[in-house]
Amino acid sequence: MAGSRFAYVKKFELPDALLPSTFMVFRLDGHSFHRFSDEHRFVKPNDLRALELMDHAAITLMQEYKDISLAFGESDEYSFLLRKSTALYNRRQSKIVSTLTSLFTSSYVFHWPKYFPDVPLRYPPSFDGRIVLYPSQQEVRDYFAWRQADTHINNLYNTAFWALVQQGGQTTTEAHATLKGTVSKEKHEILFSRFEINYDKIDARYRKGSILVRVETPEEPAPESSNTPTPNVKSTEPLDETLKAKKKKAKNATKVELLHTDIIRDSFWEKYSYLLKD
Amino acid sequence: MAGSRFAYVKKFELPDALLPSTFMVFRLDGHSFHRFSDEHRFVKPNDLRALELMDHAAITLMQEYKDISLAFGESDEYSFLLRKSTALYNRRQSKIVSTLTSLFTSSYVFHWPKYFPDVPLRYPPSFDGRIVLYPSQQEVRDYFAWRQADTHINNLYNTAFWALVQQGGQTTTEAHATLKGTVSKEKHEILFSRFEINYDKIDARYRKGSILVRVETPEEPAPESSNTPTPNVKSTEPLDETLKAKKKKAKNATKVELLHTDIIRDSFWEKYSYLLKD
Amino acid sequence: MAGSRFAYVKKFELPDALLPSTFMVFRLDGHSFHRFSDEHRFVKPNDLRALELMDHAAITLMQEYKDISLAFGESDEYSFLLRKSTALYNRRQSKIVSTLTSLFTSSYVFHWPKYFPDVPLRYPPSFDGRIVLYPSQQEVRDYFAWRQADTHINNLYNTAFWALVQQGGQTTTEAHATLKGTVSKEKHEILFSRFEINYDKIDARYRKGSILVRVETPEEPAPESSNTPTPNVKSTEPLDETLKAKKKKAKNATKVELLHTDIIRDSFWEKYSYLLKD
Amino acid sequence: MAGSRFAYVKKFELPDALLPSTFMVFRLDGHSFHRFSDEHRFVKPNDLRALELMDHAAITLMQEYKDISLAFGESDEYSFLLRKSTALYNRRQSKIVSTLTSLFTSSYVFHWPKYFPDVPLRYPPSFDGRIVLYPSQQEVRDYFAWRQADTHINNLYNTAFWALVQQGGQTTTEAHATLKGTVSKEKHEILFSRFEINYDKIDARYRKGSILVRVETPEEPAPESSNTPTPNVKSTEPLDETLKAKKKKAKNATKVELLHTDIIRDSFWEKYSYLLKD
Repeated sequence: MAGSRFAYVKKFELPDALLPSTFMVFRLDGHSFHRFSDEHRFVKPNDLRALELMDHAAITLMQEYKDISLAFGESDEYSFLLRKSTALYNRRQSKIVSTLTSLFTSSYVFHWPKYFPDVPLRYPPSFDGRIVLYPSQQEVRDYFAWRQADTHINNLYNTAFWALVQQGGQTTTEAHATLKGTVSKEKHEILFSRFEINYDKIDARYRKGSILVRVETPEEPAPESSNTPTPNVKSTEPLDETLKAKKKKAKNATKVELLHTDIIRDSFWEKYSYLLKD
Repeated sequence: MAGSRFAYVKKFELPDALLPSTFMVFRLDGHSFHRFSDEHRFVKPNDLRALELMDHAAITLMQEYKDISLAFGESDEYSFLLRKSTALYNRRQSKIVSTLTSLFTSSYVFHWPKYFPDVPLRYPPSFDGRIVLYPSQQEVRDYFAWRQADTHINNLYNTAFWALVQQGGQTTTEAHATLKGTVSKEKHEILFSRFEINYDKIDARYRKGSILVRVETPEEPAPESSNTPTPNVKSTEPLDETLKAKKKKAKNATKVELLHTDIIRDSFWEKYSYLLKD
Repeated sequence: MAGSRFAYVKKFELPDALLPSTFMVFRLDGHSFHRFSDEHRFVKPNDLRALELMDHAAITLMQEYKDISLAFGESDEYSFLLRKSTALYNRRQSKIVSTLTSLFTSSYVFHWPKYFPDVPLRYPPSFDGRIVLYPSQQEVRDYFAWRQADTHINNLYNTAFWALVQQGGQTTTEAHATLKGTVSKEKHEILFSRFEINYDKIDARYRKGSILVRVETPEEPAPESSNTPTPNVKSTEPLDETLKAKKKKAKNATKVELLHTDIIRDSFWEKYSYLLKD
Repeated sequence: MAGSRFAYVKKFELPDALLPSTFMVFRLDGHSFHRFSDEHRFVKPNDLRALELMDHAAITLMQEYKDISLAFGESDEYSFLLRKSTALYNRRQSKIVSTLTSLFTSSYVFHWPKYFPDVPLRYPPSFDGRIVLYPSQQEVRDYFAWRQADTHINNLYNTAFWALVQQGGQTTTEAHATLKGTVSKEKHEILFSRFEINYDKIDARYRKGSILVRVETPEEPAPESSNTPTPNVKSTEPLDETLKAKKKKAKNATKVELLHTDIIRDSFWEKYSYLLKD
């Protein structure tokens, strides 16, 4: 055959299967999203449209890949938990990392106009992805606790920072100086005393991040609308049509629910203990 | 700090740097593109719009990543050569694979409406990616020869197959049967005797695939239009504006040229020998 | 410095740390031991001297590397369990595999004359080694069960085979033919009816293999002789002297015990549950 | 089968083949040889017996593994070059690293009494090993240059240091202080002016290290004695007998030559250019 004398080059592609029976956490981060959020005028400290778009792209992944049982998102990052028994793409690392990053990115760009109807996308955004393996449930819990603790720290800082700038009239340099060295309690105090903001009353979405859990649906197929955790995910989506067709074949129908709750304490993991099973 | 007792989970992320001083070939493939091309009614055997969109997404990558010196595309796949000295992301495998796959996907979805103005994207497409290392120039040449030989084999088959179906009135089953076991010469003969198609006269784009080479531009910055190998890549693109700004900083300005030529014979590599250098 | 312009070659050595908090099983196999056992006239089906020498080399490893909690040996292979928390050589794979293989080999050659006083070593034997990671206790248990089940199968076959040859006067070809297709029960029957051998009465060492467990010793340092599970390991060994000196520094003194018992059933793991801890 | 329900544990052993068509350098280092050389009273600054034993063990490896074309040794380390085309153990990393480390260690212990007839081995010594990949000839040359430059630096220092101690009556602390901050020329001067030692006249073995090159022998099988680069490697070795038998089957008989010469300059590589071929 014409190409056969060149086919030896295939041998340079080495296997990259990941250790069996180990949890995979796949994490995505926005690439150069500081600039991207500036160019698209994201609202500070939190842009609801941008966060909902991230959630939508994450839901796309969970609809397409049933072995993702849980996800957590904040800002421009999202983490996905794959069951430890998953045989997705024979656990080949590059295949999983690239395909999941690709579909997330694709969904993000595809659904952009729904969330930013008045802000045309100026250039194609991108994300990077990686997989980290965790041998046990405790490490998985601690991974998600680590991300939510990070959300808390960042959001408290950003909320205080932008209050000082937007309501307090400080420059960004001044606001950084004001907050430098302050502990959590002091930031709460600044927000409350200067701006009458009770941080604990702020929308849990911003304080807790987004949690996506896969839940089993009852015997009869759930109506499609149950798949739409945010109002913008319309039931007329072509993707959803396709997925609905697929779902009929599945033995156990599942849906994805969006929560903004505490994922650090035991109560979450007691309620959703099956997410770590298999 | 609030998150510090969980931070140990970071230690599970293992380094994945690729061997230094080795060529990287990054290859992308469309994920489930058989279905994707059906749902979006791609013209058979070749859809010019789809191929030009692939080229556009590939050019986006080469504009953003200067260490890509060469690329080759056919159908729904694209291969990119990174200089063997590249220090991109410290040669971290997951970072490179995911970021490049993401940007390609993003550009593909972003530019879709330009190439398919009358065909709305029905759902977000995705790609998978992988990196293969090659120690020497000869293996790199043979890799690209392998892909172009594959292009030839596939395109000759598909051209004959769809001529039998579209012009010869055969069913797809019949067309497969007609071609089964035929060698290259016989397919040429079928095309010529039954359909008056001289295969060698078919557009080189289809027979040879798309080759993107990085070429250095003269001292003065090249006018922007020199970056537009296909008519649809308009100079008013936001991306191009951004990239133009960046380019001014670069010491050696380069541009990307699109070719449809033979990449197997020596003449190509003699002319573009610098692509394999450093 | 004289060598500095060459020092860049160090950068080609890539990190190879193994996933944290995961059990390591390090397995050694004799290299070309079929020939080695022939040239040194090992007794068939089991050579006690050779097995005791394997045990001795394994004990050397466990004395030197306290993170090995358990080992199992049969024939010319030995498996070692490292605690999942081990930080030995920062979990670098090549370092661990090579050093452990080296010390085992060294001890085997060093102690050869004690076990084979009348058989000079004709040439240097070698072993190969590998590490396999297991995320959970169950897999570790099943790994050791797998090896002991293998011991049973091999030893039953070999015992019957050599009885047919040595006592039954069959050629090796005939003995293979006799046993071909027989199940376990039939091999028992052959042994009993033809040779009056009750397989279950054969020394457990041969039927069960060798199990080495690390046990904690009481407050006061154990007398050295407690380290000598086989009569041939004399207390006058230079190695033992060295190790004794080291041991005094250790907070929790431990010793290694040799067992020939069932490692598949729960009772073993209930008694030695701490071996899988941390 | 009895063991079949446990056999799933085999799936945790992941492939570890090294990149094809790339040079492998396998390097061994003595493990805790500072203590080992003290306990066995190695002569300072260089112990001829110990170096010859290292050479012997290295020759054993090159006799057994024909894909090793070149080796370089100094002190308690040895580096081996495997042809870039080698298919040894299908290029599996752990298999190669462990087996080569094991055979070297085994040969070292086995041949110890020939080189140290009056010094019984007190305990089993061990080595660690690793493989580093190099894509091109230049990097291989620079690797060996790096090691020989290291030999020069270390040996010049050690020669001056021990002259100060053994002949100059300094304590080791004083000798370190004397040499602190001195450049190469000053160490030469100390040796010459105080101890009448012309460093360049010292045996090349100590200044240049040991180089083992594989050379092809003429048509007729070389007499066995040609395999004995050091006087202590007797032709009556069982190993040599075995290897001689094997060699008869080989198409191209080769032997291993021991040199103490400059491996940094071009002249060596011009003479032995075939060592880097294929």
